[in-house]
Amino acid sequence: MEQHIRSAFDHDLEAAQANVMRLGGLVEQALLDAAEALEARDSALAERVRAGDAAIDGLDELIQADCARIIALRAPTASDLRVVLSVMRVSSGLERCGDYAKNLAKRALVLMNGPQVAGTAASIRRMAREVVALLRDALNAYARRDIALALEVRDRDRDVDQMYNALFREFVTHMLEDPRTITPCMHLHFIAKNIERVGDHATGIAEQVVYLVGGAMPTDERPKVDSVLPDHG
Amino acid sequence: MEQHIRSAFDHDLEAAQANVMRLGGLVEQALLDAAEALEARDSALAERVRAGDAAIDGLDELIQADCARIIALRAPTASDLRVVLSVMRVSSGLERCGDYAKNLAKRALVLMNGPQVAGTAASIRRMAREVVALLRDALNAYARRDIALALEVRDRDRDVDQMYNALFREFVTHMLEDPRTITPCMHLHFIAKNIERVGDHATGIAEQVVYLVGGAMPTDERPKVDSVLPDHG
Repeated sequence: MEQHIRSAFDHDLEAAQANVMRLGGLVEQALLDAAEALEARDSALAERVRAGDAAIDGLDELIQADCARIIALRAPTASDLRVVLSVMRVSSGLERCGDYAKNLAKRALVLMNGPQVAGTAASIRRMAREVVALLRDALNAYARRDIALALEVRDRDRDVDQMYNALFREFVTHMLEDPRTITPCMHLHFIAKNIERVGDHATGIAEQVVYLVGGAMPTDERPKVDSVLPDHG
Repeated sequence: MEQHIRSAFDHDLEAAQANVMRLGGLVEQALLDAAEALEARDSALAERVRAGDAAIDGLDELIQADCARIIALRAPTASDLRVVLSVMRVSSGLERCGDYAKNLAKRALVLMNGPQVAGTAASIRRMAREVVALLRDALNAYARRDIALALEVRDRDRDVDQMYNALFREFVTHMLEDPRTITPCMHLHFIAKNIERVGDHATGIAEQVVYLVGGAMPTDERPKVDSVLPDHG
């Protein structure tokens, strides 16, 4: 009987985790598509990303409901409960990353109507690719409970922070040189900040791996490089 | 026995909900203090807000742990579980609002070293007061399961969105007129956006009330006014 309960719990949990991986795939693609739409000024692609956010929200809601059902039906032990709660947390984080992709797509549509700011869309796209690779590794680390990969993700988030800082300076330079770039640069700045936040979510997922395997969150502050602000928490 | 289990659950849940209200109080004060530090160029106050974020994070962690313990020990029914999960969600949202206050305090410290941008700090402070009142009402609606107040909060978030839009235009005007205001205005723009996000969290809490009392999230899109972006989800 204990065996039976155990395998029913495992079965339900695996299904929920598989949905989280699917959700991760949708979010990664949305981010890449939104960044491509921005660079290529492709309004149809931007519209597809916007419309696609409903599927991301729906999948997160399904995962939340499934997890609540697992808790209610299976009454998991403390350590199993910890896993279910972490699945809910990872899913919420991915849903928020989907919102950033949708926001990027919306801003891309606005930016298409204005002047191009030389080189910035390409920089944003490079940053988006970097952060999607980070998110993918974070989810793989999560699925495999791979602590080494999780710690690597935390370190690599530093590169994303540096890309953001470089872009911030690039935007200020453009705005100083040509006031017509002020409004587009304010949108581009938000886009860069939101992509940087996706990196923070990837780090958050990596920290869940440490929490699940080790039982506690990593105590040392994660590295964060941000020369724009005086200190970086 | 059933009675005994019931009251133990209620007792635990009330303690967790009381902590959420305390957390809300800390977050409200942090937002008000950070906005005041910005306007008064009070670095000591800004530093206190930054340092105070650890207490906010700690209280959220306590609430999350208490709720996980309630679920594990009391094995709540589906509808009780829904309440516990909503407490966890509200607490996470408040913790994120605390991060916005901390970020505002950090940016206030940066802005103190640069030129003042006429009138903007006062506008930010007015917006912060508006949003803190909104958050307070959202938490009161949550504590009392007051749907009428919750729906009013959703509507009033529209005013916060409008304040943000007005500020966005104000910043662009300053930057066009005086390029020395470009860097401070980029920080001020982030501050305004983060305060607007606190309003979104207040709306999120209000929607939890509808969900808890009515059993489903409100289906109509909440009103959102944002003339900066083409559409407002």
